[in-house]
Amino acid sequence: MNVSQTCKIEITKSLVSKINAVDFENLSFGSVFTDHLFECDFKNGEWQQPVIKPYAPFLLDPSSRVFHYGQAIFEGMKAYKDGSDAIWLFRPDENFKRFNKSAVRMAMPEVPEEIFMSGLNQLLQLDKAWVKKGSGNAMYIRPFMIATGGGVIANPSTEYKFMIILSPVTSYYSGEVKVLIAEHYSRAANGGIGAAKAAGNYAAQFFPTNLANKAGFQQVIWTDDATHTMLEEAGTMNVFFRINDTLLTAPVSERILDGVTRKTLIDLAKSENINLEIRPVLVSELIEASKNGTLKEIFGSGTAAVVSPIAGFSFQDIYYELPKIENTVALQLKNKLTSIQNKLEEDKFGWTVKI
Amino acid sequence: MNVSQTCKIEITKSLVSKINAVDFENLSFGSVFTDHLFECDFKNGEWQQPVIKPYAPFLLDPSSRVFHYGQAIFEGMKAYKDGSDAIWLFRPDENFKRFNKSAVRMAMPEVPEEIFMSGLNQLLQLDKAWVKKGSGNAMYIRPFMIATGGGVIANPSTEYKFMIILSPVTSYYSGEVKVLIAEHYSRAANGGIGAAKAAGNYAAQFFPTNLANKAGFQQVIWTDDATHTMLEEAGTMNVFFRINDTLLTAPVSERILDGVTRKTLIDLAKSENINLEIRPVLVSELIEASKNGTLKEIFGSGTAAVVSPIAGFSFQDIYYELPKIENTVALQLKNKLTSIQNKLEEDKFGWTVKI
Repeated sequence: MNVSQTCKIEITKSLVSKINAVDFENLSFGSVFTDHLFECDFKNGEWQQPVIKPYAPFLLDPSSRVFHYGQAIFEGMKAYKDGSDAIWLFRPDENFKRFNKSAVRMAMPEVPEEIFMSGLNQLLQLDKAWVKKGSGNAMYIRPFMIATGGGVIANPSTEYKFMIILSPVTSYYSGEVKVLIAEHYSRAANGGIGAAKAAGNYAAQFFPTNLANKAGFQQVIWTDDATHTMLEEAGTMNVFFRINDTLLTAPVSERILDGVTRKTLIDLAKSENINLEIRPVLVSELIEASKNGTLKEIFGSGTAAVVSPIAGFSFQDIYYELPKIENTVALQLKNKLTSIQNKLEEDKFGWTVKI
Repeated sequence: MNVSQTCKIEITKSLVSKINAVDFENLSFGSVFTDHLFECDFKNGEWQQPVIKPYAPFLLDPSSRVFHYGQAIFEGMKAYKDGSDAIWLFRPDENFKRFNKSAVRMAMPEVPEEIFMSGLNQLLQLDKAWVKKGSGNAMYIRPFMIATGGGVIANPSTEYKFMIILSPVTSYYSGEVKVLIAEHYSRAANGGIGAAKAAGNYAAQFFPTNLANKAGFQQVIWTDDATHTMLEEAGTMNVFFRINDTLLTAPVSERILDGVTRKTLIDLAKSENINLEIRPVLVSELIEASKNGTLKEIFGSGTAAVVSPIAGFSFQDIYYELPKIENTVALQLKNKLTSIQNKLEEDKFGWTVKI
């Protein structure tokens, strides 16, 4: 994978940087943005001149399709600064491929690789002072595409805007994470868009997640919508279960996002000789394992969440507490992952790409 | 239901009307908008001063939640001008109630009735020259709400914009409508957002609908996602089937939109003494009825589509042609409905509301 600089981008620099006004010690996830953004419009059947310009609001017609029919997709990525101030991306090819997979499913045009990668590279170069080094620090990268064409008729837009915005972050979840296992609400349908990073998949989860929050749970683990017997994913994370010394995680499907952190943890687990099974995981076996003491860990994985241990789960109004153990697999994998991402240890997988 | 004028709206009139540039004989559905729009913002936990102002693009931050997480809902309504130039809405209370039902499901604030109804009323008053009389002519009304709050973190926005825009229209579908019955792709999950008029429900259908279009079909009739054995709805219409002299339509559910035209046709069918059963309709019984000659009609219903007869359907690569019959129930119900909407006959149901 080559993070190319070949694409000619028109650059307009910000006159004044906002960086000195930012408290990097107290960042609220995804709320602070850097000085610039990358933008490329699609119209008349082709991608137009890409630009980098000062981060600012932009104009949209009230009839833009993104408002009415939800044609909108995104990716979540991170960049890391190493000890010698070099900036590294982590598996950007995976995010690029998934972005275009989402585009196809949502009937949107695919973004050419050179536009995606050049935009990423040159934007990060320009705003590199915003990428902070040190444990937990990262630049969260949000490539996204929206339908900008006008008209209140339910068919695909002919015009789109692809953008990349950057937000310096620390960790996503803080504090203990307890989850509720879904018994009624669902995230995705068979033959639906669950595997796409489509905007609409997320808003759909807000109401049931609010209900979970009110009951004292931070997240929902979604189950299959037809039977609610199979554990699928949490809203912003894939999920791993450790029963005895075996890690279990659901196979990706039309309903489950093919998470980059998920596939990375699978590779790391193999390399660390951890037993791992990729197969449907039943709610009933989780309950059973919790009751008989063989359930050791549950953790979520995602670009924003990294590896997020789960303290307990609720199902049918019964709360199952996870044991508090030392030297968890979650921590082992997280340390391995973040060491590679932060260039603290050798990347024998070739996942990290210098910009 | 009272379309009140009590809400104080700040009105800024357009200096020049665009109306003379519009060819009302050749309108492309949903592509022309009137001179003004209604807007009301929600922030700091409350609805702000509502305004009517010239229709124009508006500014949004690139991190607005509507772009990233798809918090967006809408309604489709129509207004009609009668022979004496009075303007009438059709069951606006139903659209208002459904709008707020959608809002709740998408974790958005409910719009107060006086804001919704006053906005509708005063906007239509101001742009009344744009409402044309005569068969097929109507003002399509698009109330919608989007999440405008910034931040790339997957939780509900604290800021929203509610807008109403108006588009003069004639009919939605022209020409013969053939449909494909869904065998793999799906519109909605059990426990999902299929019953909400959420923007994301529509973009999800574009890709499978494009596939159907390429195969020569204008629309898809969606089936339940778990078994694909039950007929549910088309993307922008509910669906009715006539077997012998009985009309069949699926019950509304979490997966099926509670269509205003659907419920109106049900009432009209009862009033016309047409046999009607509201129950799950199986793909298998449709095939069987087509084969044995008892399947007489299929038609869609919706605000945009009104009553749209279907010429034939395909399932498992076999095309089933509907018989060409005179005096269809579709036409009988359509004539009844449009006569009431256009005030050509008495509205004994109390559905029409003068503005």
